[in-house]
Amino acid sequence: MLLHHASWPEVETYLTRCKGIIIPIGSTEQHGPNGLVGTDAICPEVIAAEAGAEAGLLVGPTFNVGIAQHHLGFAGSMTLRPSTMIAVINDWIESLTRHGFDRIYFLNGHGGNITTINAAFAEYYANFSLDGVACPVQLMQRNWWELPGVMDTCRKLFPVGEGMHATASEVSVTYYAHPHAIKQVEMSPKIAPVGGFSDAADYRERFPDGRIGSDPSQATPEKGAEIVSFAKQALIAECVNFFDVKPAMQPAE
Amino acid sequence: MLLHHASWPEVETYLTRCKGIIIPIGSTEQHGPNGLVGTDAICPEVIAAEAGAEAGLLVGPTFNVGIAQHHLGFAGSMTLRPSTMIAVINDWIESLTRHGFDRIYFLNGHGGNITTINAAFAEYYANFSLDGVACPVQLMQRNWWELPGVMDTCRKLFPVGEGMHATASEVSVTYYAHPHAIKQVEMSPKIAPVGGFSDAADYRERFPDGRIGSDPSQATPEKGAEIVSFAKQALIAECVNFFDVKPAMQPAE
Amino acid sequence: MLLHHASWPEVETYLTRCKGIIIPIGSTEQHGPNGLVGTDAICPEVIAAEAGAEAGLLVGPTFNVGIAQHHLGFAGSMTLRPSTMIAVINDWIESLTRHGFDRIYFLNGHGGNITTINAAFAEYYANFSLDGVACPVQLMQRNWWELPGVMDTCRKLFPVGEGMHATASEVSVTYYAHPHAIKQVEMSPKIAPVGGFSDAADYRERFPDGRIGSDPSQATPEKGAEIVSFAKQALIAECVNFFDVKPAMQPAE
Amino acid sequence: MLLHHASWPEVETYLTRCKGIIIPIGSTEQHGPNGLVGTDAICPEVIAAEAGAEAGLLVGPTFNVGIAQHHLGFAGSMTLRPSTMIAVINDWIESLTRHGFDRIYFLNGHGGNITTINAAFAEYYANFSLDGVACPVQLMQRNWWELPGVMDTCRKLFPVGEGMHATASEVSVTYYAHPHAIKQVEMSPKIAPVGGFSDAADYRERFPDGRIGSDPSQATPEKGAEIVSFAKQALIAECVNFFDVKPAMQPAE
Amino acid sequence: MLLHHASWPEVETYLTRCKGIIIPIGSTEQHGPNGLVGTDAICPEVIAAEAGAEAGLLVGPTFNVGIAQHHLGFAGSMTLRPSTMIAVINDWIESLTRHGFDRIYFLNGHGGNITTINAAFAEYYANFSLDGVACPVQLMQRNWWELPGVMDTCRKLFPVGEGMHATASEVSVTYYAHPHAIKQVEMSPKIAPVGGFSDAADYRERFPDGRIGSDPSQATPEKGAEIVSFAKQALIAECVNFFDVKPAMQPAE
Amino acid sequence: MLLHHASWPEVETYLTRCKGIIIPIGSTEQHGPNGLVGTDAICPEVIAAEAGAEAGLLVGPTFNVGIAQHHLGFAGSMTLRPSTMIAVINDWIESLTRHGFDRIYFLNGHGGNITTINAAFAEYYANFSLDGVACPVQLMQRNWWELPGVMDTCRKLFPVGEGMHATASEVSVTYYAHPHAIKQVEMSPKIAPVGGFSDAADYRERFPDGRIGSDPSQATPEKGAEIVSFAKQALIAECVNFFDVKPAMQPAE
Repeated sequence: MLLHHASWPEVETYLTRCKGIIIPIGSTEQHGPNGLVGTDAICPEVIAAEAGAEAGLLVGPTFNVGIAQHHLGFAGSMTLRPSTMIAVINDWIESLTRHGFDRIYFLNGHGGNITTINAAFAEYYANFSLDGVACPVQLMQRNWWELPGVMDTCRKLFPVGEGMHATASEVSVTYYAHPHAIKQVEMSPKIAPVGGFSDAADYRERFPDGRIGSDPSQATPEKGAEIVSFAKQALIAECVNFFDVKPAMQPAE
Repeated sequence: MLLHHASWPEVETYLTRCKGIIIPIGSTEQHGPNGLVGTDAICPEVIAAEAGAEAGLLVGPTFNVGIAQHHLGFAGSMTLRPSTMIAVINDWIESLTRHGFDRIYFLNGHGGNITTINAAFAEYYANFSLDGVACPVQLMQRNWWELPGVMDTCRKLFPVGEGMHATASEVSVTYYAHPHAIKQVEMSPKIAPVGGFSDAADYRERFPDGRIGSDPSQATPEKGAEIVSFAKQALIAECVNFFDVKPAMQPAE
Repeated sequence: MLLHHASWPEVETYLTRCKGIIIPIGSTEQHGPNGLVGTDAICPEVIAAEAGAEAGLLVGPTFNVGIAQHHLGFAGSMTLRPSTMIAVINDWIESLTRHGFDRIYFLNGHGGNITTINAAFAEYYANFSLDGVACPVQLMQRNWWELPGVMDTCRKLFPVGEGMHATASEVSVTYYAHPHAIKQVEMSPKIAPVGGFSDAADYRERFPDGRIGSDPSQATPEKGAEIVSFAKQALIAECVNFFDVKPAMQPAE
Repeated sequence: MLLHHASWPEVETYLTRCKGIIIPIGSTEQHGPNGLVGTDAICPEVIAAEAGAEAGLLVGPTFNVGIAQHHLGFAGSMTLRPSTMIAVINDWIESLTRHGFDRIYFLNGHGGNITTINAAFAEYYANFSLDGVACPVQLMQRNWWELPGVMDTCRKLFPVGEGMHATASEVSVTYYAHPHAIKQVEMSPKIAPVGGFSDAADYRERFPDGRIGSDPSQATPEKGAEIVSFAKQALIAECVNFFDVKPAMQPAE
Repeated sequence: MLLHHASWPEVETYLTRCKGIIIPIGSTEQHGPNGLVGTDAICPEVIAAEAGAEAGLLVGPTFNVGIAQHHLGFAGSMTLRPSTMIAVINDWIESLTRHGFDRIYFLNGHGGNITTINAAFAEYYANFSLDGVACPVQLMQRNWWELPGVMDTCRKLFPVGEGMHATASEVSVTYYAHPHAIKQVEMSPKIAPVGGFSDAADYRERFPDGRIGSDPSQATPEKGAEIVSFAKQALIAECVNFFDVKPAMQPAE
Repeated sequence: MLLHHASWPEVETYLTRCKGIIIPIGSTEQHGPNGLVGTDAICPEVIAAEAGAEAGLLVGPTFNVGIAQHHLGFAGSMTLRPSTMIAVINDWIESLTRHGFDRIYFLNGHGGNITTINAAFAEYYANFSLDGVACPVQLMQRNWWELPGVMDTCRKLFPVGEGMHATASEVSVTYYAHPHAIKQVEMSPKIAPVGGFSDAADYRERFPDGRIGSDPSQATPEKGAEIVSFAKQALIAECVNFFDVKPAMQPAE
């Protein structure tokens, strides 16, 4: 169930059975010559939506602009400052816990977000820790590609050229989700270089077309479907456990 | 063209013809017994997407959580603090202008956002005004229901019970966009009360089911389609003018 | 009664009868060739002071620098950033409610402040809405020229050239309040141009002498007196109602 | 010349002769049984206004709410948080320097403001120091009672019971400025206790009627006039020197 | 060379040969029954100091309070909020780069700091990335236990009970650095439990004496000496490379 | 007892006898041709450490970077922005009071910190004062050179050339604490000039080698020892009184 497609009485009913919610969190940033700028938001969004639909889990709005300062050398990339993102995540958390949600699961689609999401969690917990009060809420972050079994699937599908940014897998997931946006682009070099980076100028110099270590011309919607199908099941399993869902909420219902 | 579905080279090409972008901006908040929590984000999102597709205008990610503290008495509503929202909007603006965008048009779906969006604009302009430097960027905010002719359409479709919150029109637009989310709910009273409010507790007491002045049980996807069709054309006209689009960009292309 | 002229025991006594206070809020910004830089602060200040004196209502200090980034192209204009103003207004509100004031009425003299004042109110209410606690305080904002009947008076006095900035009416009010500051300046053109604007450079280019749509050379202290007299009564009526003043507080006392 | 009573062309003219401005800065806080809540704002305001009028020096708006958290135990007291005040002072400074003011002189009326004003100055200078750029602006803070010779006058007028808060001198200055606000109150004890304090509760417990070490029942408007007359001359001398005023600006003009 | 023990002319001379500096960064938090509250600050401090002395590298002041909200259930633990820490790290970086330092290497002693330090780096780089300017500075973070070869040494010294918090290795390092602070405490259970945690209350419940997975009663100063000796060499190698030190700076000098 | 050298059970035990803690607070900034960049941190650190050891008082980590924007013209100087420092001090205070500390004594080594520390205290107290709740914590700031009798000792040791910055006394204290860092430098002129300053450029121009009014070539470790010995006793006396230490804690123990 998508929060955006629910009415408030439906959310109220949901809360009697489950206090957990999934928040897809991504980024708006370049993903190489044939990847979508929205890739990192689309991936967790589609996986969460399918898991939510199948298992009756609530999925919140997608947090769609994250930490992507290093991608600003490529047109269309957008970023929050980390201090801004910490404030926003805390406003989201406080809004949700106000209604009784006590398990908030961020399904993340962007490596660059990880540290700031964790910092935001510490900012939230610090309110309780400094007050000497036990926090009744548990926050969790999970990169979708680290869901049990997903990485194996990706490596099996793309034994060569999976890469680290604008990966063959993530581009496949977006092609599955939005087939009208598929782009045919020749990669040159076939596999992009690898390495570290600091700011946007540095990134652009090291990775001229935006990719890191990948050959995303291998991406297909079919492979995306396979990845999503796998990730969805892993996500359901993890959330049902984390949310401590009451029986009536199970898919069988 | 959706930014999230474009590649960075496509955005780079777009910028050679047009420096404008549309940002749908809404809210995640209760919309009465049969309205979607995502209503205020969905409305500008669908109107902008259709206008963008028809006229070749770029549409950015949807700013989907806004100022809705007064709706927090109803499950699922989320809010930013205004100071947070000012920071986020400024990060979005700075990201976009970095690439050369100089006309940023916020298509707003939520009355409660208006004042904070304007404050965010003043925060941005103040950087230039205090430095004594002319700002090369123009920011614009428009509520979708105030696009020329739209209000007339809404009033014609719903002569009674259009209302101020959870309006028959906005619910219709979301039913058009997401027909699987249509909800049949009896309204009681038929038309909701009207008036002002302050915080969430005050709002809930005055408007027990969340609506203000409306009877959204009249909403249908067909009426939503009519509104969107109208709003789309008005939006295209306004943006083509505001963006100063070069000829090659026109729909005929 | 002016807070600045009261002793704390007098304020304590006042609070036993009334929990409301009026805060004049304005701006320090150019008002054209013959208008005072303090116009927007002076107007609500004088109206509030006279209303307070007549009706025994408490009037707080004048919030005298507001959002005027767009006027910084003219010498002497000052501005707060909106994020700063939100912080200040919240400190003022928290200070006053600490003493038991539960109705805070901001009498505003500057259109540019409206959105930020509203954002500041939402920032304050959000504390309660996010905590799920009912806020015991009501905040209200009113532009003095929108007090019932005032606009009619202004239009009657200045059927032509009232304008939108550096209006004939507001200049008249300041001339009534500070007759030694009256300035005789020829206007050229007689009536200033109208339109929108963004930052300070843009404003100065569109409105070279600072006025928008007005001919303030018509301003006189007599007309100012008439406006103040009208506004004062409307303000008293509105505040007596909003503050729920106990009988003993009425002017007759 | 008061900035609030000047037009922008008058300020522009002033700047051709002098780049300095005086900002009265005070507080809104209890001043004992017969002192005005606005005392600390009124004192620098009246001294600066008279000096400005006599010597042709520009006087900005009064910064009227400062750091008074320790007075919040007494009705009517208001405070900013220090972090807020630092932001506001910086916005004021940036606004003024934008027009070319390069000597900003804060005439302070409240001991509790001193440290935060200095912190605000350091915040401003740090922008330049961290950038490795020379700051073209000089900021200065002066407590009015420390102007050369003023303390001697006060001690001569009130050899006993001048005190540290709600002093006989400052109450006299406000009685001179606003004779209609004079209050006759018996002091008990005659002279208030002395000592330190931390927060508002602590202050109220130590100083039950708000005074520290003073007997302000000695205050008279005549003594206030004498103090203002003295302080005015000292202020003119100091500012003419600090501002490096061009000859044409001298009072003789 | 310690910055705190250098004079400014010595730093000026250093900068002609090397633009790099090491900043030890740790935490002030409980480290179990026999570990020092300062453990995470002391470890990078002593390793950096010995490396700096041997190789002529400059070592800045120790950043000694970090992100430790989860340890606040144990007396003496201190924390910054992540948003505060981001601000501080940025002030430190801006101060150092002002002098010409362009390689800043944070030698970290606390796992809980990692995400916030990275967020702080992104905050710094974002200034450049958003401005479209190449950042001339490179920031680096390294946990001392991840220096090449160090983990192997630790595992060899403590094949059982090394653990994750209050590890045998880190306690050894502090015992080497401050032998007078060695504490003899019986551990019960011998090896502490392992697992995750959220806030301080949760941490204390799961790990009653503060340790995670460790038996630090094995710690000795001799083993600490061995670890430091190893880490020192690895640190020198890494920094000489990262800083691009000019020949004259080498240890032989 | 140093907090950094204690275990948490030791801190817990300490708190049963005493709720006070000393925080040395200094700066990282140039101290002339022969003074250490860490002077202002080292002085309170060594005095506090010796006092703590002798009297059994707990000494927290040294706050080692303060407000030194005006010293940034000299290599190695570092600064916090005042707004940052206020946030940090508040996080430190909140951490300590969480454990029950209710007397926090900042032993300060840098004149430039004084105003910001006081502003930070007001920021902390304001939380309570605005809430109308009595604050159970007392904060105190003391410059080590103002401890009773210390200034007399300094003047006796250095009748000429003690000065205001990079004083003979403070350099002596650091030479006593770190004799290996003693530097022999000829001063020219013998005694540095005196005066005020604003930003870093201004400071460097007025005081070319960093000193103000001093001749620190007189500094010796022996004189430093004498000063520390004196300051230590004064500090113990002041803290035993302020902390209200229970008998068992006295040095005799």
